[in-house]
Amino acid sequence: MESVVQISRPFKLASREFRKVDTVFTLKGVTIGGNQCVITGGPCSVESREQIFETARAVQASGAKILRGGAYKPRTSPYAFQGLGKEGLELLKEVGDALNIVTVSEVMDPADVSLVTEYVDILQIGARNMQNYPLLIAAGRSGHPTLLKRGPSATIDEFLLAAEYLLHHGTERVILCERGVHPIDRTYTRNTLDLNSVPVLKYLTHLPVFVDPAHGTGVTRYVSAMARAGLAAGADGIMVEVHPNPKEALSDGAQSQTPAQFDEMMQELRKVAQAIGRDL
Amino acid sequence: MESVVQISRPFKLASREFRKVDTVFTLKGVTIGGNQCVITGGPCSVESREQIFETARAVQASGAKILRGGAYKPRTSPYAFQGLGKEGLELLKEVGDALNIVTVSEVMDPADVSLVTEYVDILQIGARNMQNYPLLIAAGRSGHPTLLKRGPSATIDEFLLAAEYLLHHGTERVILCERGVHPIDRTYTRNTLDLNSVPVLKYLTHLPVFVDPAHGTGVTRYVSAMARAGLAAGADGIMVEVHPNPKEALSDGAQSQTPAQFDEMMQELRKVAQAIGRDL
Amino acid sequence: MESVVQISRPFKLASREFRKVDTVFTLKGVTIGGNQCVITGGPCSVESREQIFETARAVQASGAKILRGGAYKPRTSPYAFQGLGKEGLELLKEVGDALNIVTVSEVMDPADVSLVTEYVDILQIGARNMQNYPLLIAAGRSGHPTLLKRGPSATIDEFLLAAEYLLHHGTERVILCERGVHPIDRTYTRNTLDLNSVPVLKYLTHLPVFVDPAHGTGVTRYVSAMARAGLAAGADGIMVEVHPNPKEALSDGAQSQTPAQFDEMMQELRKVAQAIGRDL
Amino acid sequence: MESVVQISRPFKLASREFRKVDTVFTLKGVTIGGNQCVITGGPCSVESREQIFETARAVQASGAKILRGGAYKPRTSPYAFQGLGKEGLELLKEVGDALNIVTVSEVMDPADVSLVTEYVDILQIGARNMQNYPLLIAAGRSGHPTLLKRGPSATIDEFLLAAEYLLHHGTERVILCERGVHPIDRTYTRNTLDLNSVPVLKYLTHLPVFVDPAHGTGVTRYVSAMARAGLAAGADGIMVEVHPNPKEALSDGAQSQTPAQFDEMMQELRKVAQAIGRDL
Repeated sequence: MESVVQISRPFKLASREFRKVDTVFTLKGVTIGGNQCVITGGPCSVESREQIFETARAVQASGAKILRGGAYKPRTSPYAFQGLGKEGLELLKEVGDALNIVTVSEVMDPADVSLVTEYVDILQIGARNMQNYPLLIAAGRSGHPTLLKRGPSATIDEFLLAAEYLLHHGTERVILCERGVHPIDRTYTRNTLDLNSVPVLKYLTHLPVFVDPAHGTGVTRYVSAMARAGLAAGADGIMVEVHPNPKEALSDGAQSQTPAQFDEMMQELRKVAQAIGRDL
Repeated sequence: MESVVQISRPFKLASREFRKVDTVFTLKGVTIGGNQCVITGGPCSVESREQIFETARAVQASGAKILRGGAYKPRTSPYAFQGLGKEGLELLKEVGDALNIVTVSEVMDPADVSLVTEYVDILQIGARNMQNYPLLIAAGRSGHPTLLKRGPSATIDEFLLAAEYLLHHGTERVILCERGVHPIDRTYTRNTLDLNSVPVLKYLTHLPVFVDPAHGTGVTRYVSAMARAGLAAGADGIMVEVHPNPKEALSDGAQSQTPAQFDEMMQELRKVAQAIGRDL
Repeated sequence: MESVVQISRPFKLASREFRKVDTVFTLKGVTIGGNQCVITGGPCSVESREQIFETARAVQASGAKILRGGAYKPRTSPYAFQGLGKEGLELLKEVGDALNIVTVSEVMDPADVSLVTEYVDILQIGARNMQNYPLLIAAGRSGHPTLLKRGPSATIDEFLLAAEYLLHHGTERVILCERGVHPIDRTYTRNTLDLNSVPVLKYLTHLPVFVDPAHGTGVTRYVSAMARAGLAAGADGIMVEVHPNPKEALSDGAQSQTPAQFDEMMQELRKVAQAIGRDL
Repeated sequence: MESVVQISRPFKLASREFRKVDTVFTLKGVTIGGNQCVITGGPCSVESREQIFETARAVQASGAKILRGGAYKPRTSPYAFQGLGKEGLELLKEVGDALNIVTVSEVMDPADVSLVTEYVDILQIGARNMQNYPLLIAAGRSGHPTLLKRGPSATIDEFLLAAEYLLHHGTERVILCERGVHPIDRTYTRNTLDLNSVPVLKYLTHLPVFVDPAHGTGVTRYVSAMARAGLAAGADGIMVEVHPNPKEALSDGAQSQTPAQFDEMMQELRKVAQAIGRDL
């Protein structure tokens, strides 16, 4: 019926044809990629020293290996909280060093890339910037590990071509992160978490693939189920939002877990990982 | 930001407010709903006695409790194979009785509902007919167990309102089946399997929820991973396509598993079910 | 970049390769297709003799050549008004004869096709039934003129293959109707009217193409602008909803025009038609 | 049915409630906004002095008031032509001065904003950067006229909130440009030109609204019909791609018009503008 043939794939360095072994790398003793699954937790935004330390200790105690926390926040409205900026980065550096936990934080401006690389272990390029080419080039040139989120209407080819920018300009340690696509229906969830992308990406590319069920659903109640599903689909990592008091979070409270919810999810994820023969 | 409030839900009989306990029912000794997970396998189309018996024996040996097989086939093109019709139903009845396996088959025309109910245990209403109201009313009036597939661009409310037609007109034994929504990208998969719908539906409704990763991906290579993900997300059943020789299937060969692939998937699904405390 | 090649088109009878001249036909002296543009107005549902006569007289006085009116209504909820059924058909027949105006009404059940053909000049197959194959086959076999609406997530190929069912089974007088696809955003409109489909369809097929800006927007305020746009894009007809008192309409009041709004739109459409060299 | 109520709109400065008269401004004697319609033509990329001068003279002779031309090109692949950069800006400045034609060109990096404002009359923020907040802030602070393209899956609220960033940070002369959203179907067009957005935006905001049918269709054959439709829907401007030899264009050749095609379109657009009482 659909008389369509894809003659060749548009990406090169990101493809399994180019690099036949999985990309695996280690940060602060934490292995990313390969048979290992890695869980990332932390607040949407770094709000204060107390908040980030409390959250970091909690998620680390539950088994998270990576701490997320936003310093520069992309906000749909100019009137929403825009993040602590450099102060947020300094707090991430302090907590990362104190607890020896890997840190990841978003960078939005190419001019900030070199600054952010000094403070955090992994750069994050957000969904809205997936095709921000000056940013991809700056991140690529930094050589710093980078987590790239899929844009809300990005095709798989567009996603892998964005990764290709990073690889082409000098960063080999790239993590892909599925975080949901524009939904058919926004009544009950914020996005549609496209878990098909997990086995598709694992087939096409050697790069590790994470899943973010917090943005992928937008509702705390559904995060844990979709984290399990992401792992079962073959993801190499899960990334969620955790806040000591989600109701008072300055951003994304509606999709954040409490430390107790995160701990319960971790126990479930360990069982699922074991069931499918993955390390967690 | 999104200043939107849902004042009330448009469905009644399908809601957890209306019926606080899960809908659970038994067919030929097979329990559907509750803590039990049920796997459905079988060919897209019933093609011959030999094909349906061979497939039924294989999937039953691997642990499937329900046999699927199309007799009336909705085909995008008028020039494609349209199914064996009544002969297909007779073969399903024969194999269902001989092997004591539950059978499910699609009905497309309201005028065929009473005929199909005589031959198969569960009526299927396909994605393209999710809002075919004369068909929903006829199926509802039959009181026969019915598996309702989600339409390719149906919202959750539209899906549950289609189920409401069945419930309102007299069928209590309704199974909902997520089978993928219209995709952002058709380069690598046929649909986007929307697994968010699983925890959302489990929250909103008391009806059992199945997942069809064969239509949800359209590619055999990805079916097993997405079946595991569906189960991990909380599905009460998985529905896939199995054909003794997918390359020669008269329909949907590209997404059908061989009996060996199905058997391997079943072993994985048992481990995932155990990990999340479900019976399989 | 997109290394995709369409080798052949899946439809035959609907294609310009098969039939090189435009399909043009005449009903009650009204020409459909060719250089002529035709406007269709009328209520979503036939509600009473008074309502349908009043509306028919008004739209005819303003220049409409076709009267629409639903007797069998596809409703998302089983609790919504389902139409007057056969009584509605009888009223349409009466008003169509009395005013010598062409009538169109939706049929949902294959079993109703022969009945509906006795009462109205044009069968309508609604968006939700675009891939209801028993219905397409029954309509096709009737040979009756049929207006086929595009499904909310139907691709152009799927739309033309649905028309192919009608053509293949015996109906040559087929009108295609774009009525909007599933939207990115439902905050301000009910659907996204995909006017790209107008020049695309005019290029691919010989069949006349109508546009329905009432369903395409869902909001009366925007109907007139999108009717003009549809005509300017090359549509052969426009189909809108008109009700003497939209606020009291039993269905689709939010997208219905008053007779005065319809009249004003007609005057604008005449100017646009003249500007692009079409008859109206 | 859909029990959803929007309590308040999230944007302020962009709303008609805030500013009750249309935003109208003049550049090089060309009025943008109000009753005037303005046509923009030019190549996707500035390729050489000869190419840009030849194109500029042609489109100006046909009635275009604004010349477009890319110097910094956002390209999906890192291996595609990335634009001439500053040399392209210099050529735009030269041709804009020589022919006294308004110029518009895309800026992608916040660090380039001040440079680009020196060379061109209107900054363009492309669809992929619609939510690139550092870029919006830099453009807003420049106070330079800015044309903002709608992102491929941006809702109307997200689009107006991106404009709100520009307005909030200091730019009053903002043009919104609809250029198509992610399509249901990429078989025949590259995007779905969402013309519903035109009357919706004209209702919600005081800002001028342009339509880009070149990106909105991706196919030269359909550009002219959709330009007419955009104007008929109420657009204040149309933006298309023109190249002396589209087959040899370094980017977007498949959607570029020849100067002769552009001239023919202009004649049609003048008639449509006249039909709806707009100046062109």
